[in-house]
Amino acid sequence: MAKRVAIVGAGVSGLACIKCCLEEGLEPICFERSDDLGGLWRFTEHVEEGRASLYKSVVSNSCKEMSCYSDFPFPDDYPNYVPNSLFLEYLKKYANQFNLHKCIQFKTKVCSITKRPDFSVSGQWDVITLHEGKQESAVFDAVMVCTGFLTNPSLPLDSFPGIKAFKGQYFHSREYKHPDIFKDKCVLVIGMGNSGTDIAVEASHLAKKVFLSTTAGAWVISRVYDSGYPWDMVFMTRFQNMFRNALPTPIVSWLLARKMNSWFNHTNYGVVPEDRVQLREPVLNDELPGRIITGKVLIKPNVKEVKEHSVIFKNSPKEEPIDIIVFATGYTFAFPFLDESVVKVEDGQASLYKYIFPTHLQKSTLAFIGLIKPLGSMIPTGEMQARWAVRVLKGVNTLPPSSVMAKEVNERKENKPSGFGLCYCKALQSDYIPYMDELLTYIDAKPNLFSMLLTDPRLALTIFFGPCSPYQFRLTGPGKWEGARNAILTQWDRTFKVTKTRVLLDSSSVFENLLKLFSFLALLMAIFLIFL
Amino acid sequence: MAKRVAIVGAGVSGLACIKCCLEEGLEPICFERSDDLGGLWRFTEHVEEGRASLYKSVVSNSCKEMSCYSDFPFPDDYPNYVPNSLFLEYLKKYANQFNLHKCIQFKTKVCSITKRPDFSVSGQWDVITLHEGKQESAVFDAVMVCTGFLTNPSLPLDSFPGIKAFKGQYFHSREYKHPDIFKDKCVLVIGMGNSGTDIAVEASHLAKKVFLSTTAGAWVISRVYDSGYPWDMVFMTRFQNMFRNALPTPIVSWLLARKMNSWFNHTNYGVVPEDRVQLREPVLNDELPGRIITGKVLIKPNVKEVKEHSVIFKNSPKEEPIDIIVFATGYTFAFPFLDESVVKVEDGQASLYKYIFPTHLQKSTLAFIGLIKPLGSMIPTGEMQARWAVRVLKGVNTLPPSSVMAKEVNERKENKPSGFGLCYCKALQSDYIPYMDELLTYIDAKPNLFSMLLTDPRLALTIFFGPCSPYQFRLTGPGKWEGARNAILTQWDRTFKVTKTRVLLDSSSVFENLLKLFSFLALLMAIFLIFL
Repeated sequence: MAKRVAIVGAGVSGLACIKCCLEEGLEPICFERSDDLGGLWRFTEHVEEGRASLYKSVVSNSCKEMSCYSDFPFPDDYPNYVPNSLFLEYLKKYANQFNLHKCIQFKTKVCSITKRPDFSVSGQWDVITLHEGKQESAVFDAVMVCTGFLTNPSLPLDSFPGIKAFKGQYFHSREYKHPDIFKDKCVLVIGMGNSGTDIAVEASHLAKKVFLSTTAGAWVISRVYDSGYPWDMVFMTRFQNMFRNALPTPIVSWLLARKMNSWFNHTNYGVVPEDRVQLREPVLNDELPGRIITGKVLIKPNVKEVKEHSVIFKNSPKEEPIDIIVFATGYTFAFPFLDESVVKVEDGQASLYKYIFPTHLQKSTLAFIGLIKPLGSMIPTGEMQARWAVRVLKGVNTLPPSSVMAKEVNERKENKPSGFGLCYCKALQSDYIPYMDELLTYIDAKPNLFSMLLTDPRLALTIFFGPCSPYQFRLTGPGKWEGARNAILTQWDRTFKVTKTRVLLDSSSVFENLLKLFSFLALLMAIFLIFL
Repeated sequence: MAKRVAIVGAGVSGLACIKCCLEEGLEPICFERSDDLGGLWRFTEHVEEGRASLYKSVVSNSCKEMSCYSDFPFPDDYPNYVPNSLFLEYLKKYANQFNLHKCIQFKTKVCSITKRPDFSVSGQWDVITLHEGKQESAVFDAVMVCTGFLTNPSLPLDSFPGIKAFKGQYFHSREYKHPDIFKDKCVLVIGMGNSGTDIAVEASHLAKKVFLSTTAGAWVISRVYDSGYPWDMVFMTRFQNMFRNALPTPIVSWLLARKMNSWFNHTNYGVVPEDRVQLREPVLNDELPGRIITGKVLIKPNVKEVKEHSVIFKNSPKEEPIDIIVFATGYTFAFPFLDESVVKVEDGQASLYKYIFPTHLQKSTLAFIGLIKPLGSMIPTGEMQARWAVRVLKGVNTLPPSSVMAKEVNERKENKPSGFGLCYCKALQSDYIPYMDELLTYIDAKPNLFSMLLTDPRLALTIFFGPCSPYQFRLTGPGKWEGARNAILTQWDRTFKVTKTRVLLDSSSVFENLLKLFSFLALLMAIFLIFL
């Protein structure tokens, strides 16, 4: 009989888990608390308990060629960075294509997941769910938890003396939906993560004044990167990653700072990261410097004191009138349906081997999928985790002994700098390409670039120097997808197809190339003459 | 007795004219049709006849250090690019500082300006005005026309077959005030000038779909230029200008294209200029590529046909549903109060010597100020024109003979490429620095950089390599301003004072510099090893 797997949550990771289970011949049942799939990508006008909440304008931070499921590219006519409504549409297409709906029980809350008495032998779990007021209990051979880390807002009011006396409105960024509320108001956004920056920029189109307060600062990247290429298609290449990881950390940090400052000098704009060696998650925003230089967003350090109708910042005694405070202070995560003895969350970290498996269970029948913040996209990461995890749950792959796993987790927690490559300061952060390669190796699906260089050099070079797009993870091994090679070789075509919507007849290309050559020679001569 | 000068319009150029007249001991009377000063910079919720009309979100395209009156810097706390409300405030400060109000007659429309019968001897003009229903007539020794070129919308409906049958809403960009009207609509903006691009980008935050149609395309520049410096402070230097004008036009065009494409490849984004040699006015916009890459703005070629509820573009037979069409098709200008025999406007050009003086009048007592589109800012240009023009009207400076002036105008109209430097394709466009220098020479106020290099090398180098800010025009000669030198040397301080609002204690500067040196050496070694 096929093993029954309980999957908690039908978001991007949950969907990947269902598909992987089906492909490996397991029997998945996905419990989704809300009435539809999509998880965080499903925008609703009202915040729903236990589900991440989007604001109306959210656009993906990772481009479509880098953030698709590895065997299911986005439709050709989707923009490079996908607005949330289209993203949800894509997820629904995915669910339809692979017939995932039949495995999802909507409006079903998971109340508790506990080890069965015979867990040490069977590895089984009792799962108690609540569906339309009715509690149900069932036994599962394995459990995959896909609830993400963006549901429990962190609201550190204690760090803001005087906030209780504040007479204006304040709320967590999770509550934010539309910018209308900011019209003609003085707005303070606290926290310069992606949400905080988005909200400040959006508010600045309507508000009277917008302050964005940050202690740590951040590197800000535009989706429109070098020559307008999508940032992650340039940044996330195996070549660049190898180059970065081969250099000492201070040099990589310095090179990164140089690169980041070439768009705008982060010091002059007041947003420079406090710690330039340990890397915080960068902020993706196309508009922030433009809003700062036009005075529409004012960057401020931490808040010193909140008064009834105003705020005092750390660098100045001046009281700034404030009507609305938005706490874009991030999230914590928790697993209320699991006992602490199974998994304990401390300092924003859970003790999970490779961010997936609890280290001390007698049986490897519990996996956490999507509980990681790679610099790359969540979808291929969660999917890759699911591919490996399902094979572990099934028993095809095995985990190392508890002690080895615990050692790996502890080392990660200590976060000792290796001295090379980029250094991540935050919990759950990981270097994308090496992590994916590791998981690929576990399921024996990592393409061998050296041998490929002989058999298919064009593909090998595209994989090494080009963007590390998810199709690379489907070239070989279990889960191999026949379309992968072609998808890799046509990724740039799809990228520009949607922006090159006005094409000039380029009759002058020969002339232009000649001109280029001539111009270059003339330039050389001019430089020569100047320095003569 | 002091000569009486009639000034038409109290916008940026009109104010400069009043001040220049007062300083030269003339008696200016400025007629302003509306009830306040500021011209185009005064936003109103409703369009006023005969006055340029702004939309709510307009921000200056030229930064504060480059677009101020040459002896009146913007206040320290103004943002680098100034929103229209603050810009108006600045103009009012200027008017107060130099006591210009007393010379302005508000709510006074100029009906006609005609030569007096004895014009060939006296050079005098009869000026008939209308104030609150009452017509008045007065004699003036000279006239300065400061009505600008943004009042008469150009709406070429004939070029859009089917537009009469269109059942949606359509209007000229002049009518546009707020983006609310675009909420959830399918919007088509025609014309990719500054207004068209601004409107498309603004609409894209609310609309269902936004198309931006352009035949000619354009280079798009961000205010946030190299490393975040204001674009015009980097682009408008004497050094760069000399460099550009020393190279053959094809090379300059190629270098410019390279530079413009480094932000985003204009071909890949569908906005590349059709004509890459003759330069159209570039478009200043910080957000456009970000809106294109997220699919919020779709670039399209020209419209082929308009239907009742849709539009067909030239490159595709597909009908695109459209609810609102905005014609951002620019402006024409005219002088209804002047006889055609005095000045004739043809093909968007008036036959004016140095863009200021009619060539064939017996007396040089009529000047047009601000009727030019330099790549630089309007304020210092209009002011510089006024400084020279007032001295001509006063009789201190004289104009060359009619034939010489006519020759200059005709040559400009022919627009024969010189083969060097940038080549401007549109009427009224001119290269900023050479034009300003020419006017400075006429009034003997051009600083001599060679001798300055000996007496004040720091200033000389700042002037040559730094931004060509307006203070340079007040260093010497008539109208010399004592604060000019200091204003030049502190221009960068003022620039970053307003954005550097969060400062980190930089304790590690010595270490960082050492690190830089070390990193550089290590990098060199790495490169050496790679190529070994």
